[in-house]
Amino acid sequence: MRNSSRSSVDPFIVMDVMEAARKAEDAGRHIIHMEVGQPSTGAPSGALKALGNALENNALGYTVALGLPELRQRIARLYGDWYNVDLNPERVIVTPGSSGAFLLSFTALFDSGDRVGIGAPGYPSYRQILKALGLTPVDIQTAPENRLQPVAADLKGLDLAGLMVASPANPTGTMLDHAAMGALIEAARGEGASFISDEIYHGLEYEAKAVTALQLTDEAYVINSFSKFFSMTGWRVGWMVVPEDHVRVVERIAQNMFICAPHASQVAALAAMDCEDELRGNLAVYAKNRQLMLDGLPKAGFTRIAPPDGAFYVYADVSDLTADSRSFAAEILDKAGVAVTPGLDFDPVRGATTLRFSYARSTADIEEGLARLETFMASRD
Amino acid sequence: MRNSSRSSVDPFIVMDVMEAARKAEDAGRHIIHMEVGQPSTGAPSGALKALGNALENNALGYTVALGLPELRQRIARLYGDWYNVDLNPERVIVTPGSSGAFLLSFTALFDSGDRVGIGAPGYPSYRQILKALGLTPVDIQTAPENRLQPVAADLKGLDLAGLMVASPANPTGTMLDHAAMGALIEAARGEGASFISDEIYHGLEYEAKAVTALQLTDEAYVINSFSKFFSMTGWRVGWMVVPEDHVRVVERIAQNMFICAPHASQVAALAAMDCEDELRGNLAVYAKNRQLMLDGLPKAGFTRIAPPDGAFYVYADVSDLTADSRSFAAEILDKAGVAVTPGLDFDPVRGATTLRFSYARSTADIEEGLARLETFMASRD
Repeated sequence: MRNSSRSSVDPFIVMDVMEAARKAEDAGRHIIHMEVGQPSTGAPSGALKALGNALENNALGYTVALGLPELRQRIARLYGDWYNVDLNPERVIVTPGSSGAFLLSFTALFDSGDRVGIGAPGYPSYRQILKALGLTPVDIQTAPENRLQPVAADLKGLDLAGLMVASPANPTGTMLDHAAMGALIEAARGEGASFISDEIYHGLEYEAKAVTALQLTDEAYVINSFSKFFSMTGWRVGWMVVPEDHVRVVERIAQNMFICAPHASQVAALAAMDCEDELRGNLAVYAKNRQLMLDGLPKAGFTRIAPPDGAFYVYADVSDLTADSRSFAAEILDKAGVAVTPGLDFDPVRGATTLRFSYARSTADIEEGLARLETFMASRD
Repeated sequence: MRNSSRSSVDPFIVMDVMEAARKAEDAGRHIIHMEVGQPSTGAPSGALKALGNALENNALGYTVALGLPELRQRIARLYGDWYNVDLNPERVIVTPGSSGAFLLSFTALFDSGDRVGIGAPGYPSYRQILKALGLTPVDIQTAPENRLQPVAADLKGLDLAGLMVASPANPTGTMLDHAAMGALIEAARGEGASFISDEIYHGLEYEAKAVTALQLTDEAYVINSFSKFFSMTGWRVGWMVVPEDHVRVVERIAQNMFICAPHASQVAALAAMDCEDELRGNLAVYAKNRQLMLDGLPKAGFTRIAPPDGAFYVYADVSDLTADSRSFAAEILDKAGVAVTPGLDFDPVRGATTLRFSYARSTADIEEGLARLETFMASRD
């Protein structure tokens, strides 16, 4: 049996870092984890309590493919609360994480060979899922002066069937403001490209509120998840909002591809949406961690960083320090005991000179990690 | 925004039946559900207890993409217990249901346009997922004398890149014995087609033990799930077994497409595997229901049925009764108050003259449903 050519997915380089960190820990070393892309907190306590109750009185069989009606309604209400957008709950589709939403979006919108623009640096799985579906990812090399986000002019001549943006973005944490998002929506429309907005880090903002594409247009696919702000990574539940006349098409694909998102996770997610205090508490930790990073990283010698408006990452240009981010990350792990992610997963071209630092863990970990980085960098001089 | 051509998935006709049944119930009627493809039982109590404990002491974040190591080991042990097959746990990949396993298999093995053989009648989502991935499903019209299963001779001239079989099958419940499975594996190899065995209904057998492809070859993808025998449909957790040299490829696709199967569901699934008594109790109900169906359906006038070796379905040829299974099912719902599935979802060509009856619900429901069918059919004479 042979594997298909579409299955030749790039390995995640961060996995090597995680494996090396695990081995170091097995050998008795203490490692600070700045490589991980998930909260250290679990689902909010109200979510766990709701699920605990459901375990006693609900068989938790299949839900309908679009998701529990009360969850779809509650998500629609979030758009009123967060953005003052009046959203028809019928447009909300509950998915198995944002991963499931990517599969549904790409399948609903694109045919074999279609070209889909994604920002570089960007979330690695966009590229890999597109390839696995027989589609063509088109990296848009973003500029530091554009906060490492694509701009309208970048689309010219790319012959795109779709454009995917992320704000706040992974790995940079930078956001598209109202004007920047609007210009990209217009540019995509001008090119005849479908517009997909990955809004998974919404809610994790520190200066300004993130803008949803739905404030600007109904002609977009919007993707979100309970993994980040709602702190429910392993539950694999997210959602998408699609134009009204796309709901039936996406529903049919979802029926066949997934049947439904995990029922237990949907029950927990619904309750999580009413755990505002606990979630604000998590956010306060990230905000404190972020400030520590913005102070501590330059002090340690990582001076070229994108302005992290949201999410829980800092992306650093380390071209003044190395031309090989992979071995540099290995050196930092070895000598400083801090695991960080080389940029190559996010940007195959320029990632050899970038690193991503996550501040999703506890404040104590961030303080210790920054102290170690400072000592390590001083020893390098 | 336009939808892709690959997104033009056929609607599930059974959904119309379910919607009509729901409306009848809303109007105060009592409906017997022989259309549903899931157990009425929930996850075994040991599974719920294990998850209840985990909710208190486990953040339930992402697992590694291949699944919890202890779950992979426990699944490998099942192959020893059930089939006397010594399976390397490294070959086991935990998936988001068998649905996730289909996506992974098809992506790992096939390129755009590749032709993949599936039996007709068969599970509708095989066809739809293949189409959604830009692949080409090839219906193999199976013969009653072959128990509605494909045979080796059917493959000739089809130019297949892959062959997917299911035993016990949905909608027929028929099985491939050792010789039949072996002949298909050989024939697929001879045609250069990858072999995929959907074994989701294993454990639900009533006469002979189902044969796994792993008893015959290591060169196959085997797909299973916790949804049926383990009674955990809504949990979206299943598994696949792949050749050793395919594990890394599938792992990378899974990392990108799913990140992981739901963590809570994996915890519950692990415990479910030790709930033998409760699961045997469920099986005893199906066995009783099956016998009731085998006696009652012919008595009511449904005489042409495939021998249901396993699963919880009876597939009936009703060509002596109708040329339009869809309106016949609507008539049965309307006049008898019994919801059944027209065969068109399973076999677009011949399904106009077939019906699927599920006996997954309670024995009392099956008795009542059969009595209603008998009365209805008598009134038709």
